[in-house]
Amino acid sequence: MVNEYIELIDNKQYTKLKGILSMMEPVDIAALFDDLPEKYMPLLYRLLPKEAAAEVFVELDPDMQEMLIRGFSDTELKEVLDELYLDDAVDIIEEMPANVVKRIIKHTDPEMRHSINEILNYPKDSAGSIMTNEFIDLKEDMTVKDAFTRIRRTGLDKETIYTCYVIDRNRILMGLVSVKDLLLAEEDCIISNIMEKNPIYVNTSTDKEDVARALSKYDFLAIPVVDNEHRLVGIVTVDDAIDVLQEEATEDIEKMAAIVPSERPYLKTGVFDTWKQRIPWLLILMISATFTGKIIAHYEDALGKFVVLTTFIPMLMDTGGNSGGQSSVTIIRGLSLEEIDFRDVFKIIWKEIRVALLCGITLAAANFVKLMIVDRVSATIALVVCSTLVCTVFFAKLIGCTLPLAAKKIGFDPAVMASPFITTIVDAASLIIYFNIASAVLHI
Amino acid sequence: MVNEYIELIDNKQYTKLKGILSMMEPVDIAALFDDLPEKYMPLLYRLLPKEAAAEVFVELDPDMQEMLIRGFSDTELKEVLDELYLDDAVDIIEEMPANVVKRIIKHTDPEMRHSINEILNYPKDSAGSIMTNEFIDLKEDMTVKDAFTRIRRTGLDKETIYTCYVIDRNRILMGLVSVKDLLLAEEDCIISNIMEKNPIYVNTSTDKEDVARALSKYDFLAIPVVDNEHRLVGIVTVDDAIDVLQEEATEDIEKMAAIVPSERPYLKTGVFDTWKQRIPWLLILMISATFTGKIIAHYEDALGKFVVLTTFIPMLMDTGGNSGGQSSVTIIRGLSLEEIDFRDVFKIIWKEIRVALLCGITLAAANFVKLMIVDRVSATIALVVCSTLVCTVFFAKLIGCTLPLAAKKIGFDPAVMASPFITTIVDAASLIIYFNIASAVLHI
Repeated sequence: MVNEYIELIDNKQYTKLKGILSMMEPVDIAALFDDLPEKYMPLLYRLLPKEAAAEVFVELDPDMQEMLIRGFSDTELKEVLDELYLDDAVDIIEEMPANVVKRIIKHTDPEMRHSINEILNYPKDSAGSIMTNEFIDLKEDMTVKDAFTRIRRTGLDKETIYTCYVIDRNRILMGLVSVKDLLLAEEDCIISNIMEKNPIYVNTSTDKEDVARALSKYDFLAIPVVDNEHRLVGIVTVDDAIDVLQEEATEDIEKMAAIVPSERPYLKTGVFDTWKQRIPWLLILMISATFTGKIIAHYEDALGKFVVLTTFIPMLMDTGGNSGGQSSVTIIRGLSLEEIDFRDVFKIIWKEIRVALLCGITLAAANFVKLMIVDRVSATIALVVCSTLVCTVFFAKLIGCTLPLAAKKIGFDPAVMASPFITTIVDAASLIIYFNIASAVLHI
Repeated sequence: MVNEYIELIDNKQYTKLKGILSMMEPVDIAALFDDLPEKYMPLLYRLLPKEAAAEVFVELDPDMQEMLIRGFSDTELKEVLDELYLDDAVDIIEEMPANVVKRIIKHTDPEMRHSINEILNYPKDSAGSIMTNEFIDLKEDMTVKDAFTRIRRTGLDKETIYTCYVIDRNRILMGLVSVKDLLLAEEDCIISNIMEKNPIYVNTSTDKEDVARALSKYDFLAIPVVDNEHRLVGIVTVDDAIDVLQEEATEDIEKMAAIVPSERPYLKTGVFDTWKQRIPWLLILMISATFTGKIIAHYEDALGKFVVLTTFIPMLMDTGGNSGGQSSVTIIRGLSLEEIDFRDVFKIIWKEIRVALLCGITLAAANFVKLMIVDRVSATIALVVCSTLVCTVFFAKLIGCTLPLAAKKIGFDPAVMASPFITTIVDAASLIIYFNIASAVLHI
């Protein structure tokens, strides 16, 4: 498919190309740029209709944005910058090296420059850092007709016009009104009579994940952001909230797999950076796992007498790890989605205890049959293995559900308490349980 | 907090309660209901303003919805049903037992009943099953003024009015126009001149996850759904897309932790159902892990001669499992987010090979130092352990990245190829590598 475009460029069929590009969505054009050899990019970019150009620019990778900016004339750069929404401009600036940022700032108009600086000053991951100040504000004493006049006059370069925010003289947030309500109301209706008072809002310092969850929970298209004096300073729109929620899920998944999260997609991360994401937990868990080895060393004599015991170690360790991982991951995700709260701790433990016993007994029964029929071990050995299974699964599920809750309670990240971490603890525990039961039953 | 409400109810302070409830968001009222003893619910529900009542009803748990419906008079039931959006009505019906469904269907008006039946007929997880047919449609030859008249007349009970869909006489989707464009256009402008032609759309049979991803990718508020004749039959709105994306992430996380996914939140799932979610993979993985035991049994003699070798088994198995898990989870998430595609397979393998070598060498080096200084084993043993580490990590990462890609290619679910599955394979492999290296180096 990319080859078609290359052919068109090589044959200088620019009118045809323009026609094709004008039918495409910006994000699809950006994806095409991603697949295209770099040298074709500036040319193809200049074929885009001016309005589309900025939208495509926003969707490109930072590397490509940088390359394009470096190639832009000052006029071209200014044209793109004038079309950008504030929050997109901030996103781009955050990714650019200092000299490019300097050039960008130089070519933005003073008002935009001021807003960019303001947003860059909010802490990373706060509502302030992802909001935009391009929203429609109305006054309480306006009529619906006044409101529409204002929307028509100022709406063109606002990211969303569908929720309008009502503020007083000091910019204090008084309420909100949707364009739907405005459209369904009489022209001479006063805004304060139709606006929703006491709207849900977030603070500039609210964590962006909480902002995204609020937007999703209330099914809003945008949520207002106020400062400590309750002045309306910006809004966060639903499209950004979706991105935050997806990033959050990815981060959780990475942490659960013992990876240090990164914001860059896999294919855009270098080998060395990927190594840096993966090696810390591998090292920590490797060192921890050596304690498990110590336990085996400690029971060397018992193992020497009943070598057959060794053959069940991997099965016991894996089953324990899997059982604990199931519980911990369920709890971690529940905490993330706010379906679970620390005050549910006893309900959860009681549930996990019963599930653990059911799982443990099922596994032990299945294993007993296999041990007797397939492996043909003695009933005593089978008994040792199967009662270890029940105890290990019980312990694993208990640890698996309580550790993430405890982490949450003391302000740690519960996602770290997932399978790899649990596995390491459960491995050691399962061996201790195993050898103790073996010693007791087999009198060693 | 709940106690305050109970007190208000017990003291019959209904006016005050009404005032408080009228200030709250429906989803927060639903959360309050969730915490309240059941007997207070019908009373509190009847204190809600009529418009809010339906919105709260939608947000309640299926159990509570059922209880309320059973308590409703026919008039009350009809009042709620009349206020429901079509897609919400369908969601509720899908959760209710047959006799309740019968009663609901009896009290919906014929048009709604027809639409409900239509949507219930689409396959589960398809765009058709989550769409609503409550959208604004316009004709190409309307003026902007006509469009606003139509929006004002029919918009009240539409879920979204902000994107209007332009259809021809046969209901074929011709284009779309946003209310923003309508507001910014002249009153006598013709719709066909300002509408976006060739809009992005999905088919009724498109998987709901693809629909949600499209909405998120294009930053749409809604996406049109067409049938095989390209007739517009519904739309999917962004709030439902967010729910689908969140559910999808949860499902992936559950599968990665060897859990059979369920749609119910953890705390609402019974012990027996949780057991059913967890036991299948535990059983499968337990049986698979016994093969690892067989490998140990096979090398019993070697282990007998060098008992110290046994103590490193847990560390080698865990590190292999963690390394493979990291790779597989990264690839699975990348596939889910469509950042990774099967055609990237060679790029991925080449990258994982280099990351694996870096990780393997780092781990081996760290371990060598520890083995020599802390454990004081012979250099030969340390060499065996460390070269096994490098090989195991290499193998684990290779398997970890290729299995999910292969699964995707042959139409299997890549999420199943996560840590627990990879661990089982890598465990066996790491032992085989270990004993072979040991045999070669130690001449056993």
